[in-house]
Amino acid sequence: MRLMQDRIIKDGKVYPGGILKVDCFLNHLIDVPFVDKLCEDIFQAYKEDKITKILTIEASGIGIACIAALKFKVPVLFAKKSKTKNLSDDLYRTSVHSFTHGNTNEVIISKGYLDSRDNVLIIDDFLANGAALTGLVDLVAQSGAKLAGAAVMIEKGFQGGGDRLRAMGVRVHSLAIIDAFDGDKIIFRQ
Amino acid sequence: MRLMQDRIIKDGKVYPGGILKVDCFLNHLIDVPFVDKLCEDIFQAYKEDKITKILTIEASGIGIACIAALKFKVPVLFAKKSKTKNLSDDLYRTSVHSFTHGNTNEVIISKGYLDSRDNVLIIDDFLANGAALTGLVDLVAQSGAKLAGAAVMIEKGFQGGGDRLRAMGVRVHSLAIIDAFDGDKIIFRQ
Repeated sequence: MRLMQDRIIKDGKVYPGGILKVDCFLNHLIDVPFVDKLCEDIFQAYKEDKITKILTIEASGIGIACIAALKFKVPVLFAKKSKTKNLSDDLYRTSVHSFTHGNTNEVIISKGYLDSRDNVLIIDDFLANGAALTGLVDLVAQSGAKLAGAAVMIEKGFQGGGDRLRAMGVRVHSLAIIDAFDGDKIIFRQ
Repeated sequence: MRLMQDRIIKDGKVYPGGILKVDCFLNHLIDVPFVDKLCEDIFQAYKEDKITKILTIEASGIGIACIAALKFKVPVLFAKKSKTKNLSDDLYRTSVHSFTHGNTNEVIISKGYLDSRDNVLIIDDFLANGAALTGLVDLVAQSGAKLAGAAVMIEKGFQGGGDRLRAMGVRVHSLAIIDAFDGDKIIFRQ
């Protein structure tokens, strides 16, 4: 999608080790009118799917998910990073490893908020190795809900997470897929 | 505001010690179409103020801030809980004590995203003792930006944070103010 590619080229900052910073429009300062346009694209991709709920994970996915949810007219459920080893029976839990922070978080949702009547769209800002998205797919499976698919703002194709999810049969709609960095130059998948 | 009061009465759960759970529509499952109506009220309250940016704090404020930002057509800046003792000169920092989790977080924003040309509206889900909001007010002051005021979904009036902020001259617009719990009964400020 040209809109996101153009913005990454204009405002993204590339650092050694395949790090892309988009703090200035996506995950610290959020350019909400711009994200709204991107969410229109997500809506077009999934509008026939009778989505009942959008699932995301704290923190930077929440804003994007809420803007998209206005178009689908559905609620957002956000998975929380558990602060304590929570042993409650009322929760679905999964583990998500963060390569950025080098730790593993237990991620939870309350059982009452997702069930077999739901048709879920997963939304997140980044898809790299796929750890967060795979965790969310696991939570949907535990709940018995149907998974319509996922939508992400930026997929780092070279880290393989998106293609692994597609190979598992998960529909993944990415607004930009980066296949490589060549110095400062960003190579997008066409 | 009747809309929020009615929803708290219908779906809020009161626990001993002045704890109100609104997980089912505000801060785990987010009833986005409902929050959109509440944000229309916030927009009416501040639409003459030439807001340039909405400031919030991760995680549960982000969704509400983004929905409101669509009405104001401005970006959202969310303060992050710093994972490391960050010594960068590029940051404004403040300390926010969490009475819920019994710890103090360093909260940061990047200097480049807030400055003296901004007129800021602070948005959050809850206002209780006012620690988070006071921290955000401090960040705005450090940046040299003008503070138009704050808007919160639910103020726990009996914890005094809102009234302390008002006494400091901060305009605080709350969609519901709870002055007391009488057993299961919730006493709202009129």
